[in-house]
Amino acid sequence: MNPRTLVCLAALAGATGCASTDGYQVREVGSFHAGGSQVSLSGLPEREIRLTPSAPAIKVNPNGDFETGQLYVQYVSLVAPRARYPLLMWHGGGLTGVTWETKPDGAPGWQQYFLRQGHDVYVSDAVERGRASWSRYPEVFTSEPFFRPKHEGWELFRIGPKYDTDPARRVAYPGVQFPTQAFDQFAKQVVPRWATNDVAIQAAYDALVTRACPCVILVHSQGAAFALQAALNAPAKIKGIVAVEPGGAPDPGRSDMSRVKGVPHLFVWGDNLSQSDLWSKLRVAPDKYRAALLAEGGTADLLDLPAQGIRGNSHMLMMDRNSDQVAARVQAWMAANGLMK
Amino acid sequence: MNPRTLVCLAALAGATGCASTDGYQVREVGSFHAGGSQVSLSGLPEREIRLTPSAPAIKVNPNGDFETGQLYVQYVSLVAPRARYPLLMWHGGGLTGVTWETKPDGAPGWQQYFLRQGHDVYVSDAVERGRASWSRYPEVFTSEPFFRPKHEGWELFRIGPKYDTDPARRVAYPGVQFPTQAFDQFAKQVVPRWATNDVAIQAAYDALVTRACPCVILVHSQGAAFALQAALNAPAKIKGIVAVEPGGAPDPGRSDMSRVKGVPHLFVWGDNLSQSDLWSKLRVAPDKYRAALLAEGGTADLLDLPAQGIRGNSHMLMMDRNSDQVAARVQAWMAANGLMK
Repeated sequence: MNPRTLVCLAALAGATGCASTDGYQVREVGSFHAGGSQVSLSGLPEREIRLTPSAPAIKVNPNGDFETGQLYVQYVSLVAPRARYPLLMWHGGGLTGVTWETKPDGAPGWQQYFLRQGHDVYVSDAVERGRASWSRYPEVFTSEPFFRPKHEGWELFRIGPKYDTDPARRVAYPGVQFPTQAFDQFAKQVVPRWATNDVAIQAAYDALVTRACPCVILVHSQGAAFALQAALNAPAKIKGIVAVEPGGAPDPGRSDMSRVKGVPHLFVWGDNLSQSDLWSKLRVAPDKYRAALLAEGGTADLLDLPAQGIRGNSHMLMMDRNSDQVAARVQAWMAANGLMK
Repeated sequence: MNPRTLVCLAALAGATGCASTDGYQVREVGSFHAGGSQVSLSGLPEREIRLTPSAPAIKVNPNGDFETGQLYVQYVSLVAPRARYPLLMWHGGGLTGVTWETKPDGAPGWQQYFLRQGHDVYVSDAVERGRASWSRYPEVFTSEPFFRPKHEGWELFRIGPKYDTDPARRVAYPGVQFPTQAFDQFAKQVVPRWATNDVAIQAAYDALVTRACPCVILVHSQGAAFALQAALNAPAKIKGIVAVEPGGAPDPGRSDMSRVKGVPHLFVWGDNLSQSDLWSKLRVAPDKYRAALLAEGGTADLLDLPAQGIRGNSHMLMMDRNSDQVAARVQAWMAANGLMK
């Protein structure tokens, strides 16, 4: 009996008919923290706080033991996955795993898309962000965080050339696929970031790979350098990498590229890159990495959306109106590379 | 036909569906941010940062528009829910929605338990925590955060009377149900907190109620005061409240208790409360609130676990080894109060 039949029987039990095959049979929704270690603080002064304005002051002692450097991952595992390996979804800078969930305009995002395609999905929050938590600074994290203002999200993520506080006065790129009316909702996803945690971030990702892989990694922006490095660190564990608008890459001159020549890579790029000084610069390293992979005889495919006639995609293309269309290209690439059963 | 299929068919014959034995049919895993508003910063100085130690210094300008005060919620909706209303799961202080997910020892937690019982579940991260994000201080959040050391988790959450950095030297209460060997894993869930965000936290919870309810709220510790207030604010929206080890409650002398006399309430308490000065104090307000509800003619039931012969539960009873046993009591109470179909 195949999974679809079970779906129909379960639906009949609920007296809702087989129309409910639009759902999927889940074995478990679960989560864990991976990586991290204990740090101890001592000698810091107590301070007084009030838990409510009218409450008596209480002393808070900041000293003691803490966990630091872990990441958080949530998985949805299917009863009958059709993909060979779990799909790990890693976000970019100043964001969390919410990147992959419901889109800011309320439509289903890539987590849903790939679940419906039969992948077990693991959506993580990297060290310092979201449910991974963050640590006191400068004692544990060694610098101050910084917060991304909306104008950076609008302009650097290539939604348009000019942000304005007034939504009606924001200038978008012609034909941009990002749902601009949902931009303020998107801004609620933004989290603070640090510039000094890269070693800890990589270590926690490597710990996740040890625990959750063999797997395929789907990674966005800042996350790409960590995913490409994770494959160099543990190539037998990584069965494929899809780097969506990678913001960086390891230096192939300092990497043993022969280690990853058996790992299929796909590099996905949206539109209006030439409009952006930042992205013109950021694209250099991933392009160099891809060229080195090809020179090594590896699989390093390019999905250049405008070159394929798919126009208007922003940096946040998993949130764009045509996100399913782009996801379908990625899914087809995975199937073509033997990653589906 | 494999044995698992046979189990499913047998379950169908019993009209309970495959869900209870072999996963459950999910319509959607989704998420959104609720509440919050825009804040603008200006006049703050730029500072220099390096994105990697060897990278050139870049200037970061902290001024601009930001979203603040939102919460995050993730929902899992079933194809055929057996509960009448979605179940909203609100965490306590210094924690996130991870409270309800897989337990620190790796066993399924209450999110899984109630999904398998047929509830649509909404697990949120309150303002300032996890995927809700947090805001620059003191300009937006008006105070500094504080970080809970492990010894507070061990002692204030009533795992045992004495924490030690060395796990072998930690003293637990006799017969404690918390999986003490998983305590350091639990500590990875802890997030910083502020003492000055209560108004924003309540506003975001009220926005969630407006969007996701009618519903039942299952709430832990610090969250309880917000949930009880949310019911006072919108009683027609709240069909039941389960307050697990509530850390506070509104003052019934300042509340129109008649508004919530139609909302069934359950108060759940673990063991060793009398060993804790803190909990002896914190329990006063919820007990007073419960008494006022009863005086008003409302339903305000008490599930005092030790009084029922269930011993050893900590403050984090949804993570305790017997968490399914406690959840079953809560589930039975919901069924008895008309909250299941």
